[in-house]
Amino acid sequence: MPLENVTIIDTTLREGEQFARADFSSDAKLELAHALSEFGITFLEVTSPAASPRSRDDAARIAGANLPVTVAAHIRCHRDDVDIALDSGVGALNMVMAISPILRRASHGQAIPEVVRTAAEIGEYVRKRAPDVILRFSSEDAFRCPLNDLLNVYLPLSELKLFDRLGIADTTGAATPDRVSEVVGLVSRLTGTPVEFHGHNDIGCAIANAHAAAMAGAGYINTTVLGIGERNGITSLEGLIAVLYAADPETTRSRFDLPTLPALCHRVAALAGVEVPFNDVLVGETAFSHKAGLHTKAVYNDPRAYEALDPADFGLDRQISIGHRLTGWNAIR
Amino acid sequence: MPLENVTIIDTTLREGEQFARADFSSDAKLELAHALSEFGITFLEVTSPAASPRSRDDAARIAGANLPVTVAAHIRCHRDDVDIALDSGVGALNMVMAISPILRRASHGQAIPEVVRTAAEIGEYVRKRAPDVILRFSSEDAFRCPLNDLLNVYLPLSELKLFDRLGIADTTGAATPDRVSEVVGLVSRLTGTPVEFHGHNDIGCAIANAHAAAMAGAGYINTTVLGIGERNGITSLEGLIAVLYAADPETTRSRFDLPTLPALCHRVAALAGVEVPFNDVLVGETAFSHKAGLHTKAVYNDPRAYEALDPADFGLDRQISIGHRLTGWNAIR
Ligand SMILES: O=C(O)CCC(=O)C(=O)O
Ligand SMILES: O=C(O)CCC(=O)C(=O)O
Ligand SMILES: [Cu+2]
Ligand SMILES: [Cu+2]
Repeated sequence: MPLENVTIIDTTLREGEQFARADFSSDAKLELAHALSEFGITFLEVTSPAASPRSRDDAARIAGANLPVTVAAHIRCHRDDVDIALDSGVGALNMVMAISPILRRASHGQAIPEVVRTAAEIGEYVRKRAPDVILRFSSEDAFRCPLNDLLNVYLPLSELKLFDRLGIADTTGAATPDRVSEVVGLVSRLTGTPVEFHGHNDIGCAIANAHAAAMAGAGYINTTVLGIGERNGITSLEGLIAVLYAADPETTRSRFDLPTLPALCHRVAALAGVEVPFNDVLVGETAFSHKAGLHTKAVYNDPRAYEALDPADFGLDRQISIGHRLTGWNAIR
Repeated sequence: MPLENVTIIDTTLREGEQFARADFSSDAKLELAHALSEFGITFLEVTSPAASPRSRDDAARIAGANLPVTVAAHIRCHRDDVDIALDSGVGALNMVMAISPILRRASHGQAIPEVVRTAAEIGEYVRKRAPDVILRFSSEDAFRCPLNDLLNVYLPLSELKLFDRLGIADTTGAATPDRVSEVVGLVSRLTGTPVEFHGHNDIGCAIANAHAAAMAGAGYINTTVLGIGERNGITSLEGLIAVLYAADPETTRSRFDLPTLPALCHRVAALAGVEVPFNDVLVGETAFSHKAGLHTKAVYNDPRAYEALDPADFGLDRQISIGHRLTGWNAIR
C-alpha cells in the first residue's frame, strides 16, 4: 500500500501563513513547529526567508530549534532567494516556478524552454553552494498546463539529477482525483523521481486528490492544519490523517501521536482567528455525533456500525443524541 | 460529459435533519424546499412520514406545495412505511435496507437472500398500490459489503424491473474515489439501471466521491446544503455545484440560479445553529481571498490567474489583501 510510505510535508508555516486571517508571531510559529514535530511530522515548509527580514529570522529560528524535522524554505527560482535561504540554515529548498500559460505570463514571463534553463541554472547553483541540501523543483499551476509542456519541463530536469523531488501543484484547486492520478502517475513513472503533491480545495477535492496522488506514486503530500492557505486552503493535515487511518489504522497509530492532533487543530484555529468548522474531519464538533434512532441504537451496541474512525484513537468522545423525535423512532422499534 | 446530466437529489430535509444540531420547524422545511427549488433542484428527499406525526405532516405539506420538484420519502423496506408515505402524497419512495454484514446484524438481521426477498416483496407491494410512483431501492453501507453480496442483491432486483433507481450509500464515509468509481461503474453497467450515490464525509472525500460516482455513471447524487447530516455530514450542495461549474461553467449557470446559493447556505447555517465553515467551498468567508503578493498582483491583472471559479457568477466578491508582509513582497518586485 503506497499510503504507508507517504511523507507529509506540512506547510502550515508557509501556505498557512498565506491564509487571509493568519499572522503568526515568531513564537507562534516555533510553537507550531514543536507541536507538528511532536505529532510525528518530519518535514516542515516555511515561508521564503527572502520574503522579509522577519521571515528570515523565523526560518533561522525554526531551523535552529533542533527539532527532528527537515525544514524546507519555499523559494522562487532566484539566486537571491537561494542565498538568503541557505544562509538561514534550512536543510531543504522547495523551489517553485509558474508553469501554466496564464501564470507564466502573470509572474516570470518565461517560455517553457526558458523555465527549464532557469530551473537547471539555479539547481546547479544550489548544488555548487550546498551539495547536500535537499532540493525540490515544483511547478505552480501544473493542472492548467498542457501535459506536453509539463513533460517538457520535468523530463529534462529529472535527467539532470539535480533535484531530489519534483512537485506538482493544483494551484487553483480545480483538479479532480482522476486527473491527479493521471498526471502524478505519468510524471512519477516517466521521471523516476519522487513526486510531491500540493492541492488546493476550491472545489472541495483536496483531501481526495492527496489520496489519489499518493496512490499514483507521490511519496510526499503537502498539508496544513485545518487546511488553511490561500482562499479556502489546501489538503488538511487531519483530513489526510483520516484517509491514512481509514486505510490502515495500525500503521497510522504507530507513525503519528494521534491524540495530540485535536489540540493542534484547535490551537491553529485560535491563532488564525477562525472557528474549527463544525464539519471538519475528525475534529469538527459533530464528527462523532449520532442522531437518528437506527444509528444511535446500533452505535450503542457496536460503534463500528456507523463509525469509520474510532474517536478514542484521537483522544475524542462520541456523542449519542437522546430524546429527539428522530432518535426516538427506530431506536424503540 | 456525464456531469451535465447529473440530477441532484437534495436531502437537506432528511439527511440534513439527522445533523446533530438541526431541528427544522415545519415552516423552515417549507421555506428550504422553496429555496432549493428556486435554485434549480428538481428532486428533494424528506424524512420518512412514518418517523413521527410531524414528519408525516411536513412531508404532506411539502408534497402539496405545488413546487416543480419530485418529493421522495426516505423509508425503510416496511409495508407500514410505504403506506404512510404514499398516503402523504409524495411522488417518490427512497427505500433503503442495510446490506453490510455489520449493519444487517445491527438493524434487520436478514441474510442476503432475505434482503432480496424483502425488497422484491415490498417493491411489488408498492407497484400494486402506486404503479406510477418513482421507486428506488438503496443499500445502506454498500462500501463495507463484499462485492459479491452487493451484486447478489442488485442483479436479481434489477431484473425484476420494479425499481427506477438503485442507490449506493457510503454510510460511514470511508470510501475513496477509486473505490466509488469501481463499485458504481460495476453496478451501473451490470444492472443497466440508473444509479444514485450517497456519500458521507468522514475522511473528507464526499465531494470527490460524488464526482467519481457521476463520472462512473451515477445519474443521481445526494447532497445537503453545507453537507449537514449524521456526524460531519455528506457531499455538500455547494461543493457539488463547484465541481459541476469547474467542469462546465456555462451549463451549470444555465441549470442553476447560482447567485441564490450563498443565501441558501447562510440560511441553513442559521437554521442549524452553526457557522458557515471559513473554508467552505464557494461560500466560506475566505473562498475568494488572495493574500501573497504574487497572487494579489496577478489577480489584480487577471483574476483567473488564481481562481477556478468566478465569484461574480455566484453573486460574490473577491477580497485582495493589502498591506501584509507577504503581500508587500513580490507584489512590488
Ligand atoms: O510550491 C509548490 O509546489 C506549491 C506552491 C503553491 O502554494 C501553489 O501552487 O498553490
Ligand atoms: O438511503 C440511502 O441511500 C442512504 C441512507 C443514508 O443516509 C446512509 O446510508 O448514509
Ligand atoms: Cu498553494
Ligand atoms: Cu447518510
